[in-house]
Amino acid sequence: MELEFVDWLQQATTQARHPAVRVGIGDDAAVLEVPAAYEAVVTTDMVMEGTHFDLATQSPERVGRKALAVNLSDLAAMAAEPVAAFVSLALPVGRAAQLGPALLQGMQPLAARFGCEIAGGDTNCWSGPLVINVTLLGRCPQGTAWLRSGARPGDVILVSGALGGSLLGRHLDFEPRVELAFRLRSTYNLHAGCDLSDGLALDLWRMARASQCGAIIQASAVPIHEDARETARRTGRAALEHALGDGEDFELLLAAPSDVAERILAAPRAEIPLTAIGRFVAEPGLVLEQADGSRTPLAPLGYRHGS
Amino acid sequence: MELEFVDWLQQATTQARHPAVRVGIGDDAAVLEVPAAYEAVVTTDMVMEGTHFDLATQSPERVGRKALAVNLSDLAAMAAEPVAAFVSLALPVGRAAQLGPALLQGMQPLAARFGCEIAGGDTNCWSGPLVINVTLLGRCPQGTAWLRSGARPGDVILVSGALGGSLLGRHLDFEPRVELAFRLRSTYNLHAGCDLSDGLALDLWRMARASQCGAIIQASAVPIHEDARETARRTGRAALEHALGDGEDFELLLAAPSDVAERILAAPRAEIPLTAIGRFVAEPGLVLEQADGSRTPLAPLGYRHGS
Repeated sequence: MELEFVDWLQQATTQARHPAVRVGIGDDAAVLEVPAAYEAVVTTDMVMEGTHFDLATQSPERVGRKALAVNLSDLAAMAAEPVAAFVSLALPVGRAAQLGPALLQGMQPLAARFGCEIAGGDTNCWSGPLVINVTLLGRCPQGTAWLRSGARPGDVILVSGALGGSLLGRHLDFEPRVELAFRLRSTYNLHAGCDLSDGLALDLWRMARASQCGAIIQASAVPIHEDARETARRTGRAALEHALGDGEDFELLLAAPSDVAERILAAPRAEIPLTAIGRFVAEPGLVLEQADGSRTPLAPLGYRHGS
Repeated sequence: MELEFVDWLQQATTQARHPAVRVGIGDDAAVLEVPAAYEAVVTTDMVMEGTHFDLATQSPERVGRKALAVNLSDLAAMAAEPVAAFVSLALPVGRAAQLGPALLQGMQPLAARFGCEIAGGDTNCWSGPLVINVTLLGRCPQGTAWLRSGARPGDVILVSGALGGSLLGRHLDFEPRVELAFRLRSTYNLHAGCDLSDGLALDLWRMARASQCGAIIQASAVPIHEDARETARRTGRAALEHALGDGEDFELLLAAPSDVAERILAAPRAEIPLTAIGRFVAEPGLVLEQADGSRTPLAPLGYRHGS
């Protein structure tokens, strides 16, 4: 491990942006204030070259951005405010001096936008492919973090944005729904939340299971992204299938009591639309309801990234 | 990513040990309480097969234990109490089902011993070698974390234990000095602290530089481990050289005002001895002082692991 890498990581870490972070540069750990009546929220994600990204076709800046963005999306899923990111790198020998700074450069604008500081990390060189681990620490007022397990029969299922076909490019350049989550949490009492990383069908199935209930999706209500239609033209499958199963949408999936859902949907249309796509029900399992009222069980298909 | 890996990680995460951790199993992030008047302390370390460990000669249990132990040592270096660990794994296809649970099994007794919970993580499979990233969140009363930068000219340099030759086995099976740090911090006002990961000469040089001062080590005072003497018999070099430069001792290096050092050294001898090995001085750089009073500059040699 040559010192130059430590230098650029230290350079990235000295650009303090979050007032809660007191970093001892070169110290063994970072020190962070968590205000009274707040809780800390921690998430971590590892991405590996050849599995999660391909440096032959994707710039290291975009890859670095995504490694941070997936963690920001996890915090948004719990309506937590990002505070500090910790970046561990296994850099391939020979490409390290070029890759390291480029990865950090890809992360910095996104970190700055959400007021999150790159507060530390661990840089290493090896003969293997690039591995990036980002741990993100956030905070939220005590007891306000959305969990998957809070949905109740009768709750309306809301999703942000439009779904499917993200592999055309959105899976790298998506916008984590941090501000939307923050705004919703501070205005409305929602029952449950998660982000759509593995596909609507699978993530909704997980939320329903964690909440010990089931869900009915109205097929005609699912917001289908133009990328899903484009992908469908290439695959010959239905665009709805792509919206239900492609994954990497990084949109919010929420459970709202019906009166809350009504108020949310009646509010002036926001930049990122929210759509009601169905309801949680007492009966376990997922059901897809067509416009003619016919119902079919929906398998929890989707892309399984791991935990 | 097959679900079985998620299952054993979830199994590990459900064994909650720290009262501050509220984990939403299967949620996007873990929620942790940080009591009022406390600060959060975060450290992270990535270790890679073939670079930091060798599964041909080291069991996955020992490797998993070490991946957690180096982070515990980083928290001890700042006198913080461990709360929650987050474990990200890139598991080699074909060895994943065997390695994953074994790594966690190696971590659990150590986590339990220090009251630290394995509160989450991210499990992945790939065609590359094993990569482990551990992020550890701890806490300490506001303003009490030891930093590297607090040493002042006149302070006594203290080290715990004995140094050198850790590659004979201690580098895997060392005991992080969590309890010792905790006890020292709650009894004495120390100026600076770090752990000895890269060797006394290099780590002391870093502490002196961060504190804008220098240091004089008394050669005869350095506690030399029996492993350093054994290594010296094999290498033909002086045992002191091994104690100064081998690294991976994971002992504490502390800066104590002289009256505090006197009180510490006069206290009943603890299980893990502390030794005064020299003093911080105003003049930058490191100096090695022999028993006859002769002085030579000491280069900041050591093993550079990276940040």
